Amino acid sequence: MTIKLVLEYDGSEFSGWAAQPGLRTVEGELSRSLATVLGETAVLSVAGRTDTGVHAWGQVASFETAATVLPEQLARNLNGLLPHDVSVSAVDIVPSGFDARRDAVSRTYCYRVLARPAPSPFERGRALWWPHPLDGQSLHVCAAGLRGSHDFTAFTPTQSDHVRFERDVQTAEWRRAGSVLELWIEADTFMRHMVRVLAGTMLDVAAGRRTVGSFMRLLEGAPRSEAGPTAEAHGLYLASVRYDGKTAQ
Amino acid sequence: MTIKLVLEYDGSEFSGWAAQPGLRTVEGELSRSLATVLGETAVLSVAGRTDTGVHAWGQVASFETAATVLPEQLARNLNGLLPHDVSVSAVDIVPSGFDARRDAVSRTYCYRVLARPAPSPFERGRALWWPHPLDGQSLHVCAAGLRGSHDFTAFTPTQSDHVRFERDVQTAEWRRAGSVLELWIEADTFMRHMVRVLAGTMLDVAAGRRTVGSFMRLLEGAPRSEAGPTAEAHGLYLASVRYDGKTAQ
Repeated sequence: MTIKLVLEYDGSEFSGWAAQPGLRTVEGELSRSLATVLGETAVLSVAGRTDTGVHAWGQVASFETAATVLPEQLARNLNGLLPHDVSVSAVDIVPSGFDARRDAVSRTYCYRVLARPAPSPFERGRALWWPHPLDGQSLHVCAAGLRGSHDFTAFTPTQSDHVRFERDVQTAEWRRAGSVLELWIEADTFMRHMVRVLAGTMLDVAAGRRTVGSFMRLLEGAPRSEAGPTAEAHGLYLASVRYDGKTAQ
Repeated sequence: MTIKLVLEYDGSEFSGWAAQPGLRTVEGELSRSLATVLGETAVLSVAGRTDTGVHAWGQVASFETAATVLPEQLARNLNGLLPHDVSVSAVDIVPSGFDARRDAVSRTYCYRVLARPAPSPFERGRALWWPHPLDGQSLHVCAAGLRGSHDFTAFTPTQSDHVRFERDVQTAEWRRAGSVLELWIEADTFMRHMVRVLAGTMLDVAAGRRTVGSFMRLLEGAPRSEAGPTAEAHGLYLASVRYDGKTAQ
């Protein structure tokens, strides 16, 4: 059987997704709980390998198992074993061969910014606190410019092992929810730190520290040194992952 | 000068609002920070004395001071001193004699319920997790029945020191935000545990453990023993407080 899991986690206390010896990771916690429930070790494929501190509302992982899985029961059993900062929101049996990473058509990330003078007890660790002035209109113009295919070399660490720096952005927009501004961005795949450097650089524009024009020019393959700071991990969420109808919803 | 503060706090680590020797309370933390900033002890009046574990998005407190207060500066100074689970979102100079408790025209509370099979890392401690079946329609009917003047004796502890059990409910409705159901209720004043017993009893109805009719009859002065359980404190928020235009916004 091939199983697809949808996961939600608060990344604050995790050293990211990928299992690493001696570190607390989401994959590590999930693998341990799966081994207890299934009685075997599952090899996990994941849609987005989130970094330390990054959250997820809709991470997707898949694995093959020789065990017979009843989806609702597996969800309940896993949620009974998993720590409080990670939960399984859906379990589905999918067609044999489904792979959460390879079959993903796109990923959607959300970067949250609390834009107001006072900090918030409820957004602490869950949004970047931005008590500085901020021009919402230039955020909108930058986001609109992101749509389409661009070379995102400027938005990932120089020492990264990517071989291709072009990415296809399907949607990018800033939405306001009360005093929280959210950057929603969907693309085929993302490079390491990409959304965080995009957010950090757009906030530079919104604060008047660089122009919209200079932001647009970064999308033509400028070096990393010309973009802005990597915004903090705790504002970032892997929101959802999209699959073709024929592999899984 | 008379000063009005709007406060936001995560009640998880507080023994409620009211200062008590040896306990960590919101009033205690705020008084200490105010004393540092103003150089004098402020006597606080508060719109809603929240219980242990109850949160606030818009608590209102007032005090008189001999110091000269610049609102934005006081907010910044207090937020620099206060712990991370409480913050000052607004400071206003109000007409002399204003009293946050006495002058409040109404309070609005929100009770949040996460209604889905899986727990949520993000709603832990911030909504009641309700993985059981729930009939949304009967919640709506119960809420509609709450509007107007009723005797809420059934919804406050028997040993309470209230002398009047009638309350005037201006609005009451359940709203859905994703998988979170929120009871929003505005009334002149609330008795101890009132919103929590209302929520607990309505959830009894929604789970099919009592009828809408029996809920309605509780509003005619039935004893506490006939209502449902007191829903947990961590789902409750003091959302906002309303004042007449002539005292303060």
